[in-house]
Amino acid sequence: MSTQSRDGLTLATPASGALPTYEDVVAAAGRIAGIAHRTPVLTSRTADSRTGATLFFKAENLQRGGAFKFRGAYNAIARLSGEARRLGVVAFSSGNHAQAIAYAGQLQSVPTVIIMPQDAPALKVAATRAYGAEVVLYDRYKEDREEIGWRLSAERGLTLIPPYDHDDVIAGQGTAAKELIEEVGPLDMLFVCLGGGGLLAGAALAAEALSPGCRVFGVEPEAGNDGQQSFRTGSIVRIPIPKTIADGAQTPSLGQKTFPIIRALAEDIVTVSDAMLVDTMRFFFERMKIVVEPTGCLAAAAVLNGVVPCAGKRVGIVLSGGNVDPKALAGFLAG
Amino acid sequence: MSTQSRDGLTLATPASGALPTYEDVVAAAGRIAGIAHRTPVLTSRTADSRTGATLFFKAENLQRGGAFKFRGAYNAIARLSGEARRLGVVAFSSGNHAQAIAYAGQLQSVPTVIIMPQDAPALKVAATRAYGAEVVLYDRYKEDREEIGWRLSAERGLTLIPPYDHDDVIAGQGTAAKELIEEVGPLDMLFVCLGGGGLLAGAALAAEALSPGCRVFGVEPEAGNDGQQSFRTGSIVRIPIPKTIADGAQTPSLGQKTFPIIRALAEDIVTVSDAMLVDTMRFFFERMKIVVEPTGCLAAAAVLNGVVPCAGKRVGIVLSGGNVDPKALAGFLAG
Repeated sequence: MSTQSRDGLTLATPASGALPTYEDVVAAAGRIAGIAHRTPVLTSRTADSRTGATLFFKAENLQRGGAFKFRGAYNAIARLSGEARRLGVVAFSSGNHAQAIAYAGQLQSVPTVIIMPQDAPALKVAATRAYGAEVVLYDRYKEDREEIGWRLSAERGLTLIPPYDHDDVIAGQGTAAKELIEEVGPLDMLFVCLGGGGLLAGAALAAEALSPGCRVFGVEPEAGNDGQQSFRTGSIVRIPIPKTIADGAQTPSLGQKTFPIIRALAEDIVTVSDAMLVDTMRFFFERMKIVVEPTGCLAAAAVLNGVVPCAGKRVGIVLSGGNVDPKALAGFLAG
Repeated sequence: MSTQSRDGLTLATPASGALPTYEDVVAAAGRIAGIAHRTPVLTSRTADSRTGATLFFKAENLQRGGAFKFRGAYNAIARLSGEARRLGVVAFSSGNHAQAIAYAGQLQSVPTVIIMPQDAPALKVAATRAYGAEVVLYDRYKEDREEIGWRLSAERGLTLIPPYDHDDVIAGQGTAAKELIEEVGPLDMLFVCLGGGGLLAGAALAAEALSPGCRVFGVEPEAGNDGQQSFRTGSIVRIPIPKTIADGAQTPSLGQKTFPIIRALAEDIVTVSDAMLVDTMRFFFERMKIVVEPTGCLAAAAVLNGVVPCAGKRVGIVLSGGNVDPKALAGFLAG
């Protein structure tokens, strides 16, 4: 299998095997139809006049479970066979993937074990348990969640569904950009937050198929620009867990599957500061009346702060999630 | 002119003249098309399972200006003739109507003077000024805003656009329910917040035309149940300004135009406590990721708390606005 890049180059299949394609995104869309929300696309004349662009905000903060992660999680669980479904799945994540797996497992009657950092937002841990999951907490500055995940998988026969580096997860996440472009038409640019790259890789596959010529940007927190380094050097750069308020993007590196897709199809990776994220959260709260978590503000922050000039363009922006405690949000906005 | 009630009774035309009809709502929809947001209809399986109903939330908190008030304000200003447009308009309101008139005036290049209470949320006053309006503050526990409005109108030749008791305002507000029913189909019940009755009267006109048999409920704060008293006694009851966190519903009475429409077409007026409003705000923030101001929670609070049982029904709920300071919201949720 190979993926054709926008420059006509052919992307070599990596050691880890075939990569997902737009056809997988289409198949995922069929599996989640009527189950995931077809989230609204919001517009704001205030944001348009600030940037000189026409902005389309895909409100995945209004997705089931409060984040786009539900798409990939549901798709991945829907693809399990009988015995794997009975034994259950295990997942690790900084929060939204965990919740999404727990929620999707509950809906499909598949048992779930979730490995979450001890300092994950209380709201996320509580919501995950409320979906019927068994939660295992770990110290993310000392322990390796992947190791814990593989150990539990081996011991209990659980299927590990990683948060981004997985065909079905990438394909599921791609359905958000697919819906966006189908609803508003071709875009000149598309901005997507970047942690491990599942959403960005999926979005890039959808944009390539549905809006040829659309330039796709990943946006990371300044403190954790491993994706930018990887993109620009051509090989995966691994960094210590970055300290940023964008807790959903505190990933140490891109994945073996997400990186080659992003490298082939994305235009660039840019970064924004935590201060920009706070300003953007305030904008969404005060002007657009929606709750967007810090990670969910990454893509919008790059556009609203002119990190990439967008004047005159039709620009898609994915708001990836809204899972932030009211107290935490008030703290950010007061700070 | 007369309006046919659901019981087949004919509503007498009040002393103040003819009442608006559904045809006026349709005309208003034409005037605001492409200018007001066609706001999304949100759903929540959590809310559905809590109530046993199928709920459709019309998210007018995502309307331009942050509230449904933009609809009526824009419609009323669009109907002004040349000289009246040049001289400008004056409006009084507890906040959202003021902002909406200021915003609609700015968009149509009509000067605006806004009379607002001294204790209106800071965000609303600032936003009103940002739309280019001249703001006149008053003490709502001592002064009469209507008197101030009429005085300014006489002195400066301004057209006074009241917050609810006006044909074009009622017709404009009715477009929210019109859109909701057109999008989701017929409803069994429709819940709408009630202050002066503009939204409820407009919604009742739309529901009568588009979803015959739909029972329309107005929801008031417990502390200010003048609408309920009026509805049940058959004549307009006037009360002192009620103290409630639902600042948009702190109206002393229904209007000469809104009351007869509501009396003829609504099923009942019910009340909710401030504590229910806080719980509902929390629900919207934490589970649905949207910012809804206390007044905007009135209709939903009645449904989510079972004030009117809705099990098995298709239920529309209008979320009327989202203009609440982040600090104020945090304060409510912490209390």
